[in-house]
Amino acid sequence: MTLFDTHRALLDGALAACASRAYWSPFPENASPKIYGETAQADGQAAVEALLGQDYPLQQPGETGRIATERSPYGVEMGVRYPECSVDALIAAAQAAEPAWTALGAQGRTGVLLEALTRIHKRTHEIAHAVMLTTGQGPMMAFQAGGPHAQDRALEAIAYAYKAQADVPAEATWEKPQGKNPPLVMKKHFNIVGRGIGLVIGCATFPTWNTYPGLFAALATGNPVIVKPHPNAVLPAAITVSIVREVLSEQGLDPNLVTLALSNDPAHTQALAKSPAVASIDFTGSNQFGRWLQDNARQARLYAEMAGVNSVIIESTDQYSAMLNNLAFTLSLYSGQMCTTTQNIYIPKNGIQTDQGAKSFDQVCDDLAAAVRALVDNPRVATAVLGAVCAPETVGRIEEAAGKGRVVLASQALPHPQYPNARIHSPVIVALTEADRATFANECFGPISFLIATESSDSALATAQSTLCEHGALTLGVYSTDRAYIDRTVQLSHRARVALSINLTQGVYVNQSAAFSDYHASGGNPAANASYTTLAFVADRFVVVQRREHA
Amino acid sequence: MTLFDTHRALLDGALAACASRAYWSPFPENASPKIYGETAQADGQAAVEALLGQDYPLQQPGETGRIATERSPYGVEMGVRYPECSVDALIAAAQAAEPAWTALGAQGRTGVLLEALTRIHKRTHEIAHAVMLTTGQGPMMAFQAGGPHAQDRALEAIAYAYKAQADVPAEATWEKPQGKNPPLVMKKHFNIVGRGIGLVIGCATFPTWNTYPGLFAALATGNPVIVKPHPNAVLPAAITVSIVREVLSEQGLDPNLVTLALSNDPAHTQALAKSPAVASIDFTGSNQFGRWLQDNARQARLYAEMAGVNSVIIESTDQYSAMLNNLAFTLSLYSGQMCTTTQNIYIPKNGIQTDQGAKSFDQVCDDLAAAVRALVDNPRVATAVLGAVCAPETVGRIEEAAGKGRVVLASQALPHPQYPNARIHSPVIVALTEADRATFANECFGPISFLIATESSDSALATAQSTLCEHGALTLGVYSTDRAYIDRTVQLSHRARVALSINLTQGVYVNQSAAFSDYHASGGNPAANASYTTLAFVADRFVVVQRREHA
Repeated sequence: MTLFDTHRALLDGALAACASRAYWSPFPENASPKIYGETAQADGQAAVEALLGQDYPLQQPGETGRIATERSPYGVEMGVRYPECSVDALIAAAQAAEPAWTALGAQGRTGVLLEALTRIHKRTHEIAHAVMLTTGQGPMMAFQAGGPHAQDRALEAIAYAYKAQADVPAEATWEKPQGKNPPLVMKKHFNIVGRGIGLVIGCATFPTWNTYPGLFAALATGNPVIVKPHPNAVLPAAITVSIVREVLSEQGLDPNLVTLALSNDPAHTQALAKSPAVASIDFTGSNQFGRWLQDNARQARLYAEMAGVNSVIIESTDQYSAMLNNLAFTLSLYSGQMCTTTQNIYIPKNGIQTDQGAKSFDQVCDDLAAAVRALVDNPRVATAVLGAVCAPETVGRIEEAAGKGRVVLASQALPHPQYPNARIHSPVIVALTEADRATFANECFGPISFLIATESSDSALATAQSTLCEHGALTLGVYSTDRAYIDRTVQLSHRARVALSINLTQGVYVNQSAAFSDYHASGGNPAANASYTTLAFVADRFVVVQRREHA
Repeated sequence: MTLFDTHRALLDGALAACASRAYWSPFPENASPKIYGETAQADGQAAVEALLGQDYPLQQPGETGRIATERSPYGVEMGVRYPECSVDALIAAAQAAEPAWTALGAQGRTGVLLEALTRIHKRTHEIAHAVMLTTGQGPMMAFQAGGPHAQDRALEAIAYAYKAQADVPAEATWEKPQGKNPPLVMKKHFNIVGRGIGLVIGCATFPTWNTYPGLFAALATGNPVIVKPHPNAVLPAAITVSIVREVLSEQGLDPNLVTLALSNDPAHTQALAKSPAVASIDFTGSNQFGRWLQDNARQARLYAEMAGVNSVIIESTDQYSAMLNNLAFTLSLYSGQMCTTTQNIYIPKNGIQTDQGAKSFDQVCDDLAAAVRALVDNPRVATAVLGAVCAPETVGRIEEAAGKGRVVLASQALPHPQYPNARIHSPVIVALTEADRATFANECFGPISFLIATESSDSALATAQSTLCEHGALTLGVYSTDRAYIDRTVQLSHRARVALSINLTQGVYVNQSAAFSDYHASGGNPAANASYTTLAFVADRFVVVQRREHA
């Protein structure tokens, strides 16, 4: 039985889910010991702790030394030492591994990757703890987003890659009638060949969720991959890469098909990105480096997710309290460090109609601040929901934001019961007007949001649209009891090419994106040029090389 | 009955053909009066002649004047005056036409485009004559490549676009279990939205065949299109654009969804290409302008077909005469002005084994020259097969090529029985060695080929591979009776990502590419970054904009 046969049901489930976009997940998001095993959580945590301060067990070609780059937002000493390898050695090793991977074909590759993914799933608690320590995510989020949800996105990418490749027949007999003469008959073969090395550049906040789609899409379509994790979130990537390499070796394939690239020298990543052998780059991160890649790594097709200004428009609501609680959770979850977290909330300056009567702009500001405060003032909830602030620079941005307008809710530094050195800061909310465009039209990454008083509900739409079109976004929300107003927001979402959530009041949040159902980023505005997951995310990662001869 | 229903069988036929890649064409390539009508040829020719020296009947926004830019390689006075329109007006008109086109949905758009294509087909003879006069193609080739074969490629693009869009469900109900609590239920809608204006830049030699794929792919996926034909081959594009506009108007849609852009000022095209509203550019043409687009039109996704060095490797053959005749036809057809015509023929310097005994390198050269001479010395065949030389610069290149090595076959200027001012030149063939890489490693567009004496059959593979990888190609051929050698060439074709034809001796030529079966260009080497037609050619031309709300 081939690995493809072994995992066929998993693939078929994914293909069916992608086609229906109904709810589906083969990887339980519930961390319950009943599902994952009584000792799974402790075992996973222990596995990570055993790595701290050690050489990470990964042997790659061209190793020039070992480096430890991670600083945990929880204040935990990491000290895991990873191999630094020469760019040339990584490139050469990837190229050497490619032909056998090409020859394996789409089904063979899919089987190997599904086996690897299944093993990744078995180590969810270990990866989750690595995600938590390196990113600052709260434990539950690290488990869900770093584990099953990331695995879902990986499976989704593998399924789309399979679908796109299955669209190409392996061979054909072409028989062209020639009137009374015998037909011309050609035998044709169609081979799928990757475009070349895929470089997958991870981010500091979601080292698996944002890395897996590019990693598995590039591999599945026949390309070697070099994973360049964010220096602060290496461990989750290192475990992932090691698992894939282990499966490759077991299958008699060259493990150097997938390698980890890490260096303290920025020139190292730049050289990788500019290598003529690198055909695609998956990148999640800043506009600054994204633009550098666009300008300098011109030989590669770039799949990029960068900064945006996610927005919510509040026109009216018939569930005022539920709306506030929903928004408060969105603003608080992982201290607003999700690429989907709302930054700009547009509210008419004359206030809104609600099921609790008319509310002035200031009242909405105060009530939203109170809803956030209720979350973060509860010590048990606070640290679990907020997690820690990933980057020190974010603390600076929080302070700076407070000077940009009227502070509706001040950020507080909070203690963590377990990690005394954790960097925890509650959200800051600042009230602005449409005149403050210079402030709200740029991404202020972190637990920072702006409540923007607009001249009218019409002008909320206009200001949101121009900001979204110019700076992009992954998410847009609207609250309105007026179907005509919602329809206008739908049209806005089409023009700005941004996903829209309407009147969220229950346990779904604008910043959540469920694999197999929600397309993450449209890929059609400045915040991202690709989407998890569409055919466009996979179809251009390979080419078809045909051959034909007379039959 | 909607247009989609009307043309459903045509679409289904195309989808089935693309899936099987067996022979299929709904548009007869036989120009017989029995198929196209007794007067069709004369009517088509008359329709074109009625346009010569006239204002072309096309009314577009922002017209600033009329210009006539075409110089026929047959020496026919064209003088058709087309509208020159301001860039801003064309962009604004395209944008205004977009929302209704988006709202029509994939099926609606597909129906409209299939109706337009059906009407284009009805005017095949007219378009064919326009192609012949403007490009210099012989009449039969102008009919087939300019008519049914181009229409096949259009249909193929529409079918792939439909398939990629059909992969996105219109809506879904997402129901997530919550243990003992009621499930979370979200209603989701998924809308397909084009990326923005498509600019389709045509070439001088195949104004329909190379324009239709981008034109119809961009339109089908929800984008307005501005067609910028080559100034020397406007008429086929103008007729096409007019037909699409006519169908749009009949359907109550804005005809400015598709416009023709023409100007004598290069800044006009450059401004179009650089417009932030232009989201994609389909380009067939020179490396020079292709590189300009890559460097300057960075906001747009570029689908480009540029120069390459198409090659054939001769190792041995058991059908020597048939091989020579096959190659001679390839080199002669449309005077080598196809993007798929062989330029470099690699032959071991010690000669080859054949069914007619061993042949020295010089003998193969002489015999191939004789085979070409047999074609071009037959006056009836010569002008029909050669057609005319499209660009005056090509004549210069022919002369220059003769100075690059030993002339095996000299080019001759030939008279045309019907068009006294036609620019007709038979092929030049020049013998080189591997040391002449500076000559043969670049594209010498036109009826120019190089017979390259290689050290050995191994070194033929090595030289071909390095040239193909570095400079790209759309086609590669091999002649060998040794299956192991052929297998090595197959591996070479995978590395260079180039389509391979093996031992062609019958009525199929390396420069021919049949829609629904042959992928034209792999898109994976420097000669082209896209392929007619793969999912990759269509899938990134639109994005999915979703909305969701609690059910």
